[in-house]
Parts: sequence; structure tokens; C-alpha cells
Amino acid sequence: MKVFETIDDMREWSRAERATGKRVAFVPTMGALHEGHLTLMREGVRRGAALAVSIFVNPTQFDQAGDFAAYPRKIEGDLDKCRAEGTTAVFVPTDTTIYPNGHSTSVTIGGVTENLCGAARPGHFRGVATVVAKLFNIVQPDIAIFGEKDFQQLVVIRRMVRDLDLPIEIIGCPTVREPDGLAMSSRNKRLTPSERRSALALHRSLAAAEEMVRAGKSDSKSILKKVRQTMEAMGGVRVDYAKIVDADTLKDIAKVKSPALLAIAAFVGDTRLIDNKLFS
Amino acid sequence: MKVFETIDDMREWSRAERATGKRVAFVPTMGALHEGHLTLMREGVRRGAALAVSIFVNPTQFDQAGDFAAYPRKIEGDLDKCRAEGTTAVFVPTDTTIYPNGHSTSVTIGGVTENLCGAARPGHFRGVATVVAKLFNIVQPDIAIFGEKDFQQLVVIRRMVRDLDLPIEIIGCPTVREPDGLAMSSRNKRLTPSERRSALALHRSLAAAEEMVRAGKSDSKSILKKVRQTMEAMGGVRVDYAKIVDADTLKDIAKVKSPALLAIAAFVGDTRLIDNKLFS
Repeated sequence: MKVFETIDDMREWSRAERATGKRVAFVPTMGALHEGHLTLMREGVRRGAALAVSIFVNPTQFDQAGDFAAYPRKIEGDLDKCRAEGTTAVFVPTDTTIYPNGHSTSVTIGGVTENLCGAARPGHFRGVATVVAKLFNIVQPDIAIFGEKDFQQLVVIRRMVRDLDLPIEIIGCPTVREPDGLAMSSRNKRLTPSERRSALALHRSLAAAEEMVRAGKSDSKSILKKVRQTMEAMGGVRVDYAKIVDADTLKDIAKVKSPALLAIAAFVGDTRLIDNKLFS
Repeated sequence: MKVFETIDDMREWSRAERATGKRVAFVPTMGALHEGHLTLMREGVRRGAALAVSIFVNPTQFDQAGDFAAYPRKIEGDLDKCRAEGTTAVFVPTDTTIYPNGHSTSVTIGGVTENLCGAARPGHFRGVATVVAKLFNIVQPDIAIFGEKDFQQLVVIRRMVRDLDLPIEIIGCPTVREPDGLAMSSRNKRLTPSERRSALALHRSLAAAEEMVRAGKSDSKSILKKVRQTMEAMGGVRVDYAKIVDADTLKDIAKVKSPALLAIAAFVGDTRLIDNKLFS
């Protein structure tokens, strides 16, 4: 496994792989790798591609400086995990490699960024889109793989790829969960044992909604009421948002129809967690 | 010479050319081709590359609907000119090919877009950067060639390519002029015979400034006073801006130093013309 720190080295690897006729699969990450990331990597390998992973904690997508500072970083363990999954190349740029002096370009996506985390975290998706556009241009993959846990991010990246005519196929992979249902997230590492118990409220509220839908309820308002109640019944959980949206446009919808997304965000202690359930 | 209307066809051509080891040179245009454009094409051919030209009057870079409507379009003559210069492929997409329903992504460049035409034409450079990013991703050239007449555009594109890590070399070519000094522009076609005479005011004012600098003057204020006076001495000319800026940052500077850019814009009748002089 190669580890590259410069843009030129990373690009040269990609060019060489493609010259041999291999497809390049790419999994961009912010490190602190868990089973969710590893599933994305396996998907790349399964598709017979040379697998590139990037590890870069992108400062421009954090709307809170404290969240950026507290984001878990454990590069040695991350590299071991990449190696174990059959990764061919890892890109670990510094902040100044990605954002040198004078950097002043950004990629903005309208529409699908206006609701959910886009509304709750101003500038977040501009930061995500810009860094992913840069990483795509550096790694030049044929396919890129993202998790459905960050569902809005996946929709935003698909929109960007279509709108900027990037010749890249975007693959979404289902959320990976702990045995008790908590969605895997690098931020889970920041939870105290008692917060870890409280965090289960997110998955439970999705399960409660699923039960209502299965029982024939489709009214968003009453489902969301139940979702909020379920989350707030657990001490130490503060709901940021709970929404039912069209899964393509991410606009609020009054009734659950196919495909609809129930998306939730909540603070557990100081840690903001998100989760979602797709009704399709 | 091939003429392509779809993104897939254009991209397939480019892929095939590169697969044979050829470099691809790209000249994006809005058609109404004149000697200035042809010079850019010759530069591509001179570099031994397969030459792709795009012809697309981009609606999103016009800040005035009337200017967009009045922009000259003459596709048959344009194709003849491309053929005569040894162009290998021409891309002539429709508006809906470039901006299909739901398109909502834009590329924004800060800093270098804040002065000059960026200040005078809100949204113009966002429109330019976005369409050029798209065209770059469609054509995937190794080199792209732009004219120095649109000096700020050239600076903006260089900034975008650097900031988004696009693997493309940007080449600037000197402004091509009519025998009497008027900078070639597709908009010149809209001038009446009397406006055509008035339009010479732009080049004359640059020449007056050049004389002052050659005589040892460096104070921007007095040079710009002379530039404005020279332009306004010609009936039918209304100055939009006249500025002396650092040629890298495009920020106003009080004294001409190397490299400085004198940039001017003026309305001649209803037609807005620009010109510039680089002091390096």
C-alpha cells in the first residue's frame, strides 16, 4: 500500500493505474475509520478496482471550531485498517496542500442543500462539495463510494457530479450499525458511557416511525411527533431536527410516499449525531 | 472535423484521442469567431495537440438579458473557420444539454473577481467559472487556451484550475487587434459605422497611458485621469471603469509597478467593450 502526501504523487499513481486499464475506486474519508468506512472500501475492492482512500479532516466543512478540534484523529490505526482491506493507495494531504495561500474557489449546490443539515450547519455542504471536487480532480477515480448514513451528503455529491459533468460513478452503501442499532460514526468515540446509552434514542425513534408506517400511517406530522417524543424520552438528548422529505429533492413532504426519507439530528451531550431511514 | 452535440460523444472523442497518446488542446468560445479566436486555435495546433473547440453562448454569464439576446450567433461560418484552422472536434451543445432541469451547482471564485468586470457585472464570473468547469470536465483537455483581451477571465480561470486541482495547463495569448488598434471582439459586429469610429477611443486611451508610463509617470491617479479624458473626448463613449491594478491580485494600486494592468470598460452606444494594457 502506497501513502501519498502530495497532489502530484497521488495523481501520478492514478494515471499509472488507469494506463494499465484498471478502474480506480475512491473512498474519501476524514479518518477515524470504523466498520462503516471499511464497508465502503470492500465495495471498491469487490468491484475489482484499484482502491484509493483519502484521509483528510476538512476544516471548511465544520461550522463549529470546537467540533473540528475535537474530531478524532488516529492516522496510524487508520492506515492499518486501509491496508487490511486491500487499499492500494492512501492520500493524506496536509491542510496547506489542500488549501494553499490564496485559495478562494468554492463549489455551491442549491436546492438539495437548503433543508436538513444544510439548514442546521451553514456552509457545511459548500465545504464538503469543494473538498470532494478537489479530491475527485486529484484522484480522478472512475467510481466513488459514500455511505447512506450521510444521506444528504450523498444526494449533494450526486447533484454536483451531474451538474459539473464529472465522469465519475457515485455509489451509495447502506448504513452500518452497532449490534444495538446505533449508526456507526467517528463521532461516537466522543460519547461517554452514559451518552452512548442515550444515543440509542436516534435508532429507536426511527424504529418507532417504521412501525407506524408499517401500520399504515403516512401523515408526516404525527410520525414526526412520535419520533421527537421517542428521542426526548431519553435523558440527555436534544433534538436538532426531525423531518420527512422527498428522497430526491430533500424538500419536506406532508405524507410519506415512495421514496421518502426520515432524517434526524440530535445532540447527545455536546456531540451531534445524525441518522435516517429511507422508505422506498 | 467532427461536430458533437452530446456530452457522451464529446467525451468519447477526447478519451479516444488521449488513448492514442495525443494531447488535447481546448478553446472554449461563444462563437461569432474572429481572428482573436483563430489565434487561440493556431496556438493549440502549433503545440501538436488534437484541437477541440466549443461553441456555446452561455446564458449564465450575461448580466443583461438584452446583451444575451443580441450576442451574435453564426454557427455555419464558425464551423467553416474551425475547419480551416485544423480543428479536430467542435462541441456545440444546446442550452438544456449544459443546464438540464434541476441544475443547481455553481463555482464561485473570490478575491480576483471583486474588482473590474466582476464589480461591474454581478454574477458574470460565477457564470463563466461554472460553464468552464463543466466544459473542462466534458472535454478533459490537457491544455486550454484563452485570450488576454479578457484578462480578468484568464486570471479567474487560472485561479479556479489551481484551487480545484484541475490537471489542465492554461495558456494566455496576446490580444489581436484590427489595423487601427481596436481589440477584436464578437461585440464589435454590433457597432454602427459611427460607433466603430468612437470605439477607437479605448485603444487610444491605452496608448496615451503607455506614453505617460514610458515618460516616467507612475502615479495611477494622473494616468487614469488622462485615460478617462481620452475616452470621453470621443463623442458617444461612456466610461464604465478605468483602473490600474496588480496583475496577479487585480486589486487597485496607487503606482504602476511590474506587473500592473490598466483595464478599461466603456459603453459605445449600447455595446460594452473592454480592453487592457499589461505593464510588465
